[in-house]
Amino acid sequence: MNNFQFYSPTEFVFGKDTERQTGALVKKHGGSKVLLHYGGGSVIRSGLLDTVKASLTEQGISFTELGGVKPNPRDTLVYEGIDLVRREGIDFILAVGGGSVIDSSKAIAMGVPYAGDFWDFYCGKAAPAAALPVGTVLTIAAAGSEGSGDSVITKEDGWLKRGAGSDLIRPRFSVLDPALTCTLPAYQTACGATDIMAHVFERYFTNTTEVGITDRLCEAVLKTMIAETPRVIAQPDNYDARANIMWAGTVAHTNIVGVGRDQDWNSHGIEHELSALYDCAHGAGLAVIMPAWMEFVYRHGVMRFAQAAVRVWGCEMNFADPEVTAREGIARFRQFLHSIGMPINFAELGAKESDIPKLVESFGIGSGRTGGFLPLSAEDIAEIYRIAARAAL
Amino acid sequence: MNNFQFYSPTEFVFGKDTERQTGALVKKHGGSKVLLHYGGGSVIRSGLLDTVKASLTEQGISFTELGGVKPNPRDTLVYEGIDLVRREGIDFILAVGGGSVIDSSKAIAMGVPYAGDFWDFYCGKAAPAAALPVGTVLTIAAAGSEGSGDSVITKEDGWLKRGAGSDLIRPRFSVLDPALTCTLPAYQTACGATDIMAHVFERYFTNTTEVGITDRLCEAVLKTMIAETPRVIAQPDNYDARANIMWAGTVAHTNIVGVGRDQDWNSHGIEHELSALYDCAHGAGLAVIMPAWMEFVYRHGVMRFAQAAVRVWGCEMNFADPEVTAREGIARFRQFLHSIGMPINFAELGAKESDIPKLVESFGIGSGRTGGFLPLSAEDIAEIYRIAARAAL
Repeated sequence: MNNFQFYSPTEFVFGKDTERQTGALVKKHGGSKVLLHYGGGSVIRSGLLDTVKASLTEQGISFTELGGVKPNPRDTLVYEGIDLVRREGIDFILAVGGGSVIDSSKAIAMGVPYAGDFWDFYCGKAAPAAALPVGTVLTIAAAGSEGSGDSVITKEDGWLKRGAGSDLIRPRFSVLDPALTCTLPAYQTACGATDIMAHVFERYFTNTTEVGITDRLCEAVLKTMIAETPRVIAQPDNYDARANIMWAGTVAHTNIVGVGRDQDWNSHGIEHELSALYDCAHGAGLAVIMPAWMEFVYRHGVMRFAQAAVRVWGCEMNFADPEVTAREGIARFRQFLHSIGMPINFAELGAKESDIPKLVESFGIGSGRTGGFLPLSAEDIAEIYRIAARAAL
Repeated sequence: MNNFQFYSPTEFVFGKDTERQTGALVKKHGGSKVLLHYGGGSVIRSGLLDTVKASLTEQGISFTELGGVKPNPRDTLVYEGIDLVRREGIDFILAVGGGSVIDSSKAIAMGVPYAGDFWDFYCGKAAPAAALPVGTVLTIAAAGSEGSGDSVITKEDGWLKRGAGSDLIRPRFSVLDPALTCTLPAYQTACGATDIMAHVFERYFTNTTEVGITDRLCEAVLKTMIAETPRVIAQPDNYDARANIMWAGTVAHTNIVGVGRDQDWNSHGIEHELSALYDCAHGAGLAVIMPAWMEFVYRHGVMRFAQAAVRVWGCEMNFADPEVTAREGIARFRQFLHSIGMPINFAELGAKESDIPKLVESFGIGSGRTGGFLPLSAEDIAEIYRIAARAAL
């Protein structure tokens, strides 16, 4: 096990009607003038935004609205938000929405006290020294951003999708009401579930030995997702299944299941090029990429993949030929993704094999290699895209 | 799943030599004048206390020492600590030790800003409104107090052992170096492991339905303990096994594995009377009590006990008679405890069956019932003590 630091100071308030506590939570965590940041019409139509506004007003907290966050949130709106917050003297960023809204909020929170361009944090030029406090009211179980110190933003100029991370942007509180997710369409629900599972798998496949506790915690989250996701696809308003998925999504990405081990985020990086180029859902892109990545790398760690097959997917161990078991686990994953309505190849995603050179170019690895479980060259990444392009059940 | 709040703001710094960061962590978390609180000679003999002092001095932090914390920490030393902290104008309590030292530190931290008697928090008369910040350098994986909002103190007058809980006493930071636990004798190691497993089981046996994610997380911690504990008993200086146990012990008690469900802490309460009367190790008392409690209550939730037997202990499910499986899981637990050197009955613990009326009397339930999985009367508790007294493999 590696040395590590784990710090997850977010206050999670979970359950039915907890969004009514938003104003009290902003106050408790020091906010008096709020940027109310959200996306499109669904939080308006559902009445959630009104509930949140009422709870702010009840606590005497003033707010300024900034809607319009899109999936794969853009740098342009972040700049707008930073200007607005500075102009209005706002002291707290409240995200009402999913991962995109939260990531945009985190970017604004870091950008406000920074003299330079906030994009510096995303292209690796600088690390934040301060950030405004962020709170969230989550509307989809997916990105885990409600409990993470991560943010991913897309730069419109060149459609670059890049991430930044700091404990400073871990939300001060996150309100998690599973009932808010009961109206999500099946496709978005499945995209979210795929993202959650990917967050765990990216941590699970490691070269670090002696990580029994985190292996088991990863498997716990994955088995929960395998059990609960088909339930919510079949019964969208099953509160309890939604609740299990929502908490699993948070646990998957605070990093409590990933401490003390080297991690591999190549599938996320390889996927980011797809969602940047095609503006597809991140989860759908992951459904196409992640099993392909597994097929490319599993020979590097057959017994680890066999462990996943047995412990997560319930495969019987083939002691004579563990590779068979390893491959069976990957096949089960792809079948599972298909069963919940996810695309499993480029055609189903709306991507084109002929774009692979462009995707690899944009990934920007040059003649180098990525880090991770199995470091990848540009040619390796191209091969993973090709496997993903042609995948079948 | 029940609504819940989860708040674990402790910064965990885990791994080899992390105790050298103590001074920097105190400073980061706002301390300038420290009460250095510890137990007996082991932290002095091992050189740990010197390392911690050097790291404080390096950061320009002054400190006042208060040693002498005993297992089952006493109210008398807490009063002494409160006086000392007030007199010296100390602003941070640093616990160097195990659960007893940390619990004593938390009691002092709550007691200092309180005008009344700190025992009010332990006998349920008052809830704390403020507390000094607490940091910890942990020397045994057991109580989980390094990541919890709980504290248990024994009142010498009448040997009452009582608990208090508040998010205010969650440590600001906890330094966890598994290497510090490599010199622990096998018996203390096993007592700690038993306590960790008990913390999970007390959460696992619940009447709350639809708690798939926390069930799985509980099972993850338990399976880790089953795999790793025999390793450290056989190889006391196995760093990696110590590391897995140490992190499992923290995860077991931040409550991340117990949110959203009713819990049952009767085994802890029933045990507390044993350690209060005989001053035995809490873990050893739990090894005697917990399987006995299980035998008494399992018929209330046969399928939940069968689930534990199958998922945690690897028993094969008896579909024709699930009670057989449920009982097999309990038997496996007791065998496991025996295998790691724990007592399994009163004689092995040094307790007397003839003391049962006194133990029940001190438990103080009168004609009422406890809460929990199966609410217990005084007669039920007496029966659990009798089962524990006479238990055999």
